[in-house]
Amino acid sequence: MEESDSLISLLNDFSKIDGYKVLVHGGGRSATALATRLGLETKMIEGRRVTDAEMLKVVTMIYAGWVNKQIVAGLQALGLNALGLTGADLNYMRSEKRSPYPIDYGFVGDVKEVNVSLLTDLIRKEVVPVLAPLTHDKCGNLLNTNADTIAAEAAKAFSSFFEVTLIYCFEKKGVLMNEKDEDSVISSLTPELFDKFVSQKVIQGGMIPKMENSFNALKSGVSKVIITRADAILTHSGTTITL
Amino acid sequence: MEESDSLISLLNDFSKIDGYKVLVHGGGRSATALATRLGLETKMIEGRRVTDAEMLKVVTMIYAGWVNKQIVAGLQALGLNALGLTGADLNYMRSEKRSPYPIDYGFVGDVKEVNVSLLTDLIRKEVVPVLAPLTHDKCGNLLNTNADTIAAEAAKAFSSFFEVTLIYCFEKKGVLMNEKDEDSVISSLTPELFDKFVSQKVIQGGMIPKMENSFNALKSGVSKVIITRADAILTHSGTTITL
Repeated sequence: MEESDSLISLLNDFSKIDGYKVLVHGGGRSATALATRLGLETKMIEGRRVTDAEMLKVVTMIYAGWVNKQIVAGLQALGLNALGLTGADLNYMRSEKRSPYPIDYGFVGDVKEVNVSLLTDLIRKEVVPVLAPLTHDKCGNLLNTNADTIAAEAAKAFSSFFEVTLIYCFEKKGVLMNEKDEDSVISSLTPELFDKFVSQKVIQGGMIPKMENSFNALKSGVSKVIITRADAILTHSGTTITL
Repeated sequence: MEESDSLISLLNDFSKIDGYKVLVHGGGRSATALATRLGLETKMIEGRRVTDAEMLKVVTMIYAGWVNKQIVAGLQALGLNALGLTGADLNYMRSEKRSPYPIDYGFVGDVKEVNVSLLTDLIRKEVVPVLAPLTHDKCGNLLNTNADTIAAEAAKAFSSFFEVTLIYCFEKKGVLMNEKDEDSVISSLTPELFDKFVSQKVIQGGMIPKMENSFNALKSGVSKVIITRADAILTHSGTTITL
């Protein structure tokens, strides 16, 4: 999403997906680049950004400002009636600041409440929500929230109104049997198979929380979860996750 | 809007205005401050910002990102269901890049089309739109657009659906008879009086386009325009402009 050329191609593919659509984006690389230009140090713990007051300003500018509005303007150019939102907009996703113990992540929010009824009305009027990875505590504070989590929580909430397929895009073709072999995609995964692969250390690291998010979404009403590469969202290749 | 204390007090007052509400904000000072931190020079011609590609990124981050989302989160904390938008969101305001002759302002847009039907539905559901001073060309480009113009154009469009009062807030108590006397507020102005004051040089400089915007809005259906200081929006003191 963060490179101009791949953004255009991804939005093009996205615009061709059938049915109602919601897009969830990140922006971590651009945030780190801006922080560096501003002389701020980026601290990550277990792949999560530590968000102090200055970093919250950076991620808000990048996620809700530059990245979100580039996507919204790009989708509008493709004829999709996009609307960019953080969790504060329409109060669609409320979170609570995570406890500073055992790790103080700063202004990071854990999702507590998702209200998509107004968004559902808009989607039925062909509006395409574009969700930035920020929530709010309804006390005036924006909070940084992982994009994978936003996607899973939104998918769960929308599943009360629609049949939902959740597609996670990342840099690999899917969940791999062998990390070094791009073509060793596991085409379908169930909880049993996942547990087996975790115990065999076939699946490890950052893929584990992504998979846990996926199973959680499926248990809460999402019909299907697909993990694939950004250039393959139309083919639905990659790894399909079911219960 | 750009200082944390005055923002809270302004949002508090705003939340107490009766009836449906829309808030339009700027962010120029914060944009200039960020540009300076990034080593970019801010060029203004006749009070308008020259917006090259780098400056467009800065104003998008500040206007649509930091300022807009601070306001949205602040209004949500006050119980108002705020929704932040640029002109690209819901395609509510389309503009065209201004000709580079005689002055090249860069990525600056002149408003061509305003579509508020979806926003009108949302307002009737108690949503409070918060409008950032950015539009788009529907070809994928965001464009910088003066906040006074956004306010006037939005007010005109909403006047097809609602009785609209347009309140401009700035640092003075209203249009002054004597710039050095804060209490010399002209309480009401008509086009005839305005012409007289302009010819007498009582009204000059940046106030002239603001007034022209106001008369233009009134001619296009807005019921009343008030120019006042930000701390006086509830009293409706200041200068009332009518046809």
